[in-house]
Amino acid sequence: MKYFNINDIDSLDKIFRINLINSCSGFKSANLLGSISAEGNTNLAVFSSVTHLGSNPPTLGFILRPTTVPRDTYKNIRDTGVFTINHIFEDIIEEAHHTSAKYPGDVSEFDITGLEAEFKEACIAPFVKNSPVQMEMKYVEEVYIKSNDVLMIVAQIEKLFVNEKLIHKDGFIDLSAGKVVSINGLDGYAVPKLKERFGYQRPKK
Amino acid sequence: MKYFNINDIDSLDKIFRINLINSCSGFKSANLLGSISAEGNTNLAVFSSVTHLGSNPPTLGFILRPTTVPRDTYKNIRDTGVFTINHIFEDIIEEAHHTSAKYPGDVSEFDITGLEAEFKEACIAPFVKNSPVQMEMKYVEEVYIKSNDVLMIVAQIEKLFVNEKLIHKDGFIDLSAGKVVSINGLDGYAVPKLKERFGYQRPKK
Repeated sequence: MKYFNINDIDSLDKIFRINLINSCSGFKSANLLGSISAEGNTNLAVFSSVTHLGSNPPTLGFILRPTTVPRDTYKNIRDTGVFTINHIFEDIIEEAHHTSAKYPGDVSEFDITGLEAEFKEACIAPFVKNSPVQMEMKYVEEVYIKSNDVLMIVAQIEKLFVNEKLIHKDGFIDLSAGKVVSINGLDGYAVPKLKERFGYQRPKK
Repeated sequence: MKYFNINDIDSLDKIFRINLINSCSGFKSANLLGSISAEGNTNLAVFSSVTHLGSNPPTLGFILRPTTVPRDTYKNIRDTGVFTINHIFEDIIEEAHHTSAKYPGDVSEFDITGLEAEFKEACIAPFVKNSPVQMEMKYVEEVYIKSNDVLMIVAQIEKLFVNEKLIHKDGFIDLSAGKVVSINGLDGYAVPKLKERFGYQRPKK
C-alpha cells in the first residue's frame, strides 16, 4: 500500500493532490443540473456530489463552492428556486463532461454541446432529453460548512421521471439497466453493472 | 417514462417509496466506516453517503440520522474523534452489506462477518484488511440539516493508504482496477468499469 499522511498530502504537487483526494471518496453520482436564469438563459452543469438525505420528504443535497464555478447554477437556483437533476448515461459522457468548461452566463451549454433541452409538466428549468432519470427539484435551504467554505444545497424532489423499464416491483431503480454512469475523481467516467441485491439485513442467530 | 409528482410520491407504499427515492440520486459510494468505543469495542458499518468536500484541507463528509441506527458509529466518533473509511470491493460485498443489521453496541461486526480488522500507524480505529483504499479520518464538525433532521459529519483525512497499482502518474486513483463497487439504492451493489477520462475542459473556440 502507498501511504500518505496529512503532511505528505499537504506537500503534494497541486494537480496530484486534487486528483488523489477527488478519487479517494469512492465512486460518485454523475448528474447534470439544469437551471434557468431570471432572464431566461438555460444552464447545464455536471455535478458529482448529489447525495440522498431522506425519503420522507424526498430530499437530496449537493455541494457547491459559491465563490468559484459553477456560479451560474447557484445564482439561477437562488433566483428561481427550481432546478433539474438528470442522470448521465453512457452515450452522453463526453458532452456531459464538457459542461464543466467555464462559459459566460449568457452561453447555454445546450447550445455548445449536443445535449438537448426538454421542457415538460410546467417545470421552468430544462431537463436533459433521453436521460433515464430526471427530477424537478425545489430549493429548500442551504447549509454552510464552515471548515471547508462550501455550501450544501438541500432540495426536495417535486417531480420524478424514470424510464419504466428500470423500475422493479418494489420501487428499486436498476440504474445499470439504464446505462447510468458513475464518476471516478474529477474526470473519469465508469459504467457500473448491477451484481446483486442483498435485501434488508437482520442479525444472524 | 413513468412520472411521479410529489403527491404521488407521498402516497406510495412505504417500501416502494424508500427503494425508489434511495435509488434516484444515482450511484453512491460504498464504504465501511470503522470505529471504536471508549470501552474498546470495535464497530463497522456500511455507508453510501461519503462525499468529497474539498482537497485542501482534504475533507470528506457523510450523512447520519443520529436518532436512528447506526448510533454506534456516531457515538464512537464523538467519543474518540477518530474513524476509518474503507472502500468496499467486489469480494466482500455480501459481508459488507450485512454490517447494516442492527447488532447491540458490544457486538463487533468484525466478529459476526468474515471481515478482518487491521490496526496500523497508531490509528486507534480499525481498518478493513485488504480494502484497496483506507483512510484514517479526524472529526472536524457536524452540520445539522434542519429540513430533513439529519447531520452531515465533516472529517479530515489524516492518513491515506492506497493500493499502489491503482495510482496513476497524476494522482488519479483507478477505483475499478481495485474492484471498488458502488451502491444502487439501499441494497444493490454494482461493479463499475472505468470507460474514459476526459481531462480538464476549456471552452470550445
